[in-house]
Amino acid sequence: MYDITKRRSIRKYAEREVSDELLHSLLQRAEQTQTMGNLQLYSVVVNRDAEMKRRLAPAHFCQPMVEGAPVVLTFCADYNRCTQWCLNRKAHPGYDNLLSFLNAATDALLYCQTFCHLAEEQGLGLCFLGTTIYNAQQIIDTLQLPKLVMPVATITLGWPDEDAPVSDRLPLQAIIHEESYKPYTTESIDRYYTPKEQLEENRHFVEINGTETLAQIFTDIRYKGDDCRAISQALVDVLRKQNFL
Amino acid sequence: MYDITKRRSIRKYAEREVSDELLHSLLQRAEQTQTMGNLQLYSVVVNRDAEMKRRLAPAHFCQPMVEGAPVVLTFCADYNRCTQWCLNRKAHPGYDNLLSFLNAATDALLYCQTFCHLAEEQGLGLCFLGTTIYNAQQIIDTLQLPKLVMPVATITLGWPDEDAPVSDRLPLQAIIHEESYKPYTTESIDRYYTPKEQLEENRHFVEINGTETLAQIFTDIRYKGDDCRAISQALVDVLRKQNFL
Repeated sequence: MYDITKRRSIRKYAEREVSDELLHSLLQRAEQTQTMGNLQLYSVVVNRDAEMKRRLAPAHFCQPMVEGAPVVLTFCADYNRCTQWCLNRKAHPGYDNLLSFLNAATDALLYCQTFCHLAEEQGLGLCFLGTTIYNAQQIIDTLQLPKLVMPVATITLGWPDEDAPVSDRLPLQAIIHEESYKPYTTESIDRYYTPKEQLEENRHFVEINGTETLAQIFTDIRYKGDDCRAISQALVDVLRKQNFL
Repeated sequence: MYDITKRRSIRKYAEREVSDELLHSLLQRAEQTQTMGNLQLYSVVVNRDAEMKRRLAPAHFCQPMVEGAPVVLTFCADYNRCTQWCLNRKAHPGYDNLLSFLNAATDALLYCQTFCHLAEEQGLGLCFLGTTIYNAQQIIDTLQLPKLVMPVATITLGWPDEDAPVSDRLPLQAIIHEESYKPYTTESIDRYYTPKEQLEENRHFVEINGTETLAQIFTDIRYKGDDCRAISQALVDVLRKQNFL
């Protein structure tokens, strides 16, 4: 039986087909996820074609899973279909704004996560690519996404061909707040993060990155402030182009 | 065994406690959800106190589930904890931007949905309140959320005390696109939406709302363009106040 406490991302996939029958069954079952006003403000683009995966790869910084996975799924916030429906039904939609984007993104992400859960229950392995909104314009161009459609999540999917380790997580007390948000203190930050910092894999991670602390890997190498601000600006431009701003 | 095709939102809850032991076990197991760089950019505020639920209710347009549920969970995009950690570790974070907000919101929503799935597997019932970002400032004030924390989802949770119907969904073909996005046509919109429009509950829904079409309920009554634009502006202001813009 599937045990979520053992879940891990899978980046290497076996040479075994993920049938359309299985994929469609999972995508359809996931539709029962809650959705705003039962509008289902999402779409999924399914890529199996090698040439299409090759064209998507650069948007994901050429992470090898994109070309290596039998299936790549791009989950999109989609107000286009709903808007088309409204226009064809004498209704006057007004979903060209940030609220509507966030509502559709929420629908898409909840749907995506139900899909992930159902797929993993079946023994499939997947990797969630957070890079989707970093180079959204490339994805929009490649997948020919119209206005009011914005990619928000990408999943590479296949049968696992690796026994990846389970990642550590913060203790529950670090993420829950009873009744109201309790400010973190120097002491509580130490209590929650020191066990993570002392893990051998994280000490090794610091060593190979040549930083003094684990946190510096994130601020100085992986998600640098200047990069985040520049990508944010590009993201605003893409949201504007897609008519969500 | 839990069958997701039977899932439905639950708005009425039995007078039966949801133990801290069960709640914490579910929240902890959900932590295994994928998260950006293993940073876990989310927090959850747990409300059981009647007075706190009473204060939260107006932000959710006084939907009765908020005061009626034994537990209300507010899932937040949280870059505050990570930033505190960085600052205490000689690292210089730069997460005061839209990209970082969306990264944290994605983490929070994926985590939330795993939690929902695990809770429903246990027989718990829940309702997802999409209203969270409509009146985010009220929630921020009530729950004392600091800068770089933004509420993105609220769940009311308890043991079901109703046998709610399962909602219809669009056929799978309406939401998937093979290889690239295929524009919808008048004919495909009809094919995908007519079965929904012909359901007795939706005909009744149109009748009691006094509209001509089902779509008009959404554009003229529930999610009006002018309202969306006004709320969007308020949302931009809140994101700015929380240092995400």
